[in-house]
Amino acid sequence: MDVGEKAAVADLIKLAGSCGGIGPGDDAAAVDLGDRYLIITTDMIAKHTHVPEGMTPWQVGWTVAAVNYSDIAAMGAIPLCFVVSMGFPKETDISYVKDVARGIKECSEMVAADYVGGDTKECYEMALSGTAVGTVRKEGILLRSGAKPGNVLAMTGSAGLAGAGFEDLTLGSKHARARKALMEPIPRVKEAALLSASGFVTSCMDTSDGLASSIHELSKASEVNFMLNWDAVPIPNDVYEISELKLLPVEDMVLYAGGDYQLLFTVERENVEELHQMLGKDFTVIGEVREKGGNVVRRSGQLLTLENKGFEHFKG
Amino acid sequence: MDVGEKAAVADLIKLAGSCGGIGPGDDAAAVDLGDRYLIITTDMIAKHTHVPEGMTPWQVGWTVAAVNYSDIAAMGAIPLCFVVSMGFPKETDISYVKDVARGIKECSEMVAADYVGGDTKECYEMALSGTAVGTVRKEGILLRSGAKPGNVLAMTGSAGLAGAGFEDLTLGSKHARARKALMEPIPRVKEAALLSASGFVTSCMDTSDGLASSIHELSKASEVNFMLNWDAVPIPNDVYEISELKLLPVEDMVLYAGGDYQLLFTVERENVEELHQMLGKDFTVIGEVREKGGNVVRRSGQLLTLENKGFEHFKG
Repeated sequence: MDVGEKAAVADLIKLAGSCGGIGPGDDAAAVDLGDRYLIITTDMIAKHTHVPEGMTPWQVGWTVAAVNYSDIAAMGAIPLCFVVSMGFPKETDISYVKDVARGIKECSEMVAADYVGGDTKECYEMALSGTAVGTVRKEGILLRSGAKPGNVLAMTGSAGLAGAGFEDLTLGSKHARARKALMEPIPRVKEAALLSASGFVTSCMDTSDGLASSIHELSKASEVNFMLNWDAVPIPNDVYEISELKLLPVEDMVLYAGGDYQLLFTVERENVEELHQMLGKDFTVIGEVREKGGNVVRRSGQLLTLENKGFEHFKG
Repeated sequence: MDVGEKAAVADLIKLAGSCGGIGPGDDAAAVDLGDRYLIITTDMIAKHTHVPEGMTPWQVGWTVAAVNYSDIAAMGAIPLCFVVSMGFPKETDISYVKDVARGIKECSEMVAADYVGGDTKECYEMALSGTAVGTVRKEGILLRSGAKPGNVLAMTGSAGLAGAGFEDLTLGSKHARARKALMEPIPRVKEAALLSASGFVTSCMDTSDGLASSIHELSKASEVNFMLNWDAVPIPNDVYEISELKLLPVEDMVLYAGGDYQLLFTVERENVEELHQMLGKDFTVIGEVREKGGNVVRRSGQLLTLENKGFEHFKG
């Protein structure tokens, strides 16, 4: 297209309905069901931009389900069901299609959602479009807006592993954990349900487009700024190893690569301890919310600008 | 693919969950929401197979919404919302994308549903995947199964107009009504709501793949046979005109061409009059349900076999 994906999407969001101000602009849309919100999201995977070399059909299916469930999780919702439209080239073997469907089914089982059907068509390029639907109590919905100065910034899991997995592809894939993070993302559905139930979370989204990009999105939606504390970011050893082997800065994978599908959220500082009791150790405070000062990284006592660049496709 | 679209879809349906026996195999899937069913369906349009020459981007958008709303209608449900994943080639102009979105928005407004968002990606071939969601009272759901011997077969609107519109493309498009039927299908959402509310309908589906194909589908799902009364089928004059100009049998367009998106349904004979009072004249009794004898057409006193061939793509 003539304009970048994000600009095009922003234009289209204006055309799509606003759902009373909730939904568009967030990870998924919210529709009023009376007693609760229906949460719905759709995400497409096209072969040349989103399917790295060596990804198995099972992993393709798993991924198209996982990325959609991650959007549902980011809104604090419980996944309900999943449908998929699949376009395959004429010469595609039916066993490939079935393996894709098995990947979808197993990912859906993991999050206790029903894979209820779909559509299969012929398309010159393989293109899979998944739609996940969930529901959430009205007061439990998590949005990108709502972060307040004084809140802390936190994330589930770690940062950089999927990005490192992508770099590892050209290393002959010696790092199984990184490769798996890239090829079989885990949507943080259980954690999202706990975050929603806690009542402590002031804003939330997933890190699918990278940590830096997500921080800038929360910043824009909440009209606040963030200071990311580099030393607090949980970075697996594989990321450092792959960084050395590829002679690439660790920051590129941790801040600017996508594919991690962790939850990035804000809470009041006084609630962190209780949240740890609910979620266990699998989240980390990595920064704080400030009224102004731009979005910055604190590292070795210095404040550096956090660039607003992210990852949209495997291939630019 | 190695196998036809329907065979592939049938295989995939087995992999998708059964939703307690409701949904897969019908026009859309049903998910239990406690007090009602959530109805969900997804349909993909790929450029080379589903976008006839001369279709405007607005019509492309309208169609991807309409075909999904038609599936919701076929289940007796009220549409709630719509999302779409759109894959466009890199060189696509943003104005094209916006016109597609406007078509979706206007079709959604017509059926009083919310177009709530989507995803835009780069794909070598234009591929649009829409997902529509609706809800229906549990006792109001319409399924393909349920037709009983002695019931009559009925349809909304007319048959053959979209098929004639497709043939008309090579005639220089002199038949505006047929062309419009092909390019801007109208999902029968209001009629579906009335059919659902009536409590009279024993089975229902849409005629998207053609009248003959739909009759065979109802036959299979309900384990009954049908006798279609040819003289009763409402066929617009344009279909006869285009048939003569193209030297093609009228039957090809009326029975075996797709794209009409009418509702095909069965009711007990004694309820037909009351249903006419609810829906007005816009439905016609076109046949009857029989216990056995195969699916046949009665024409000029003769019983002919109704072939089970339909239409899957604009181009074979």
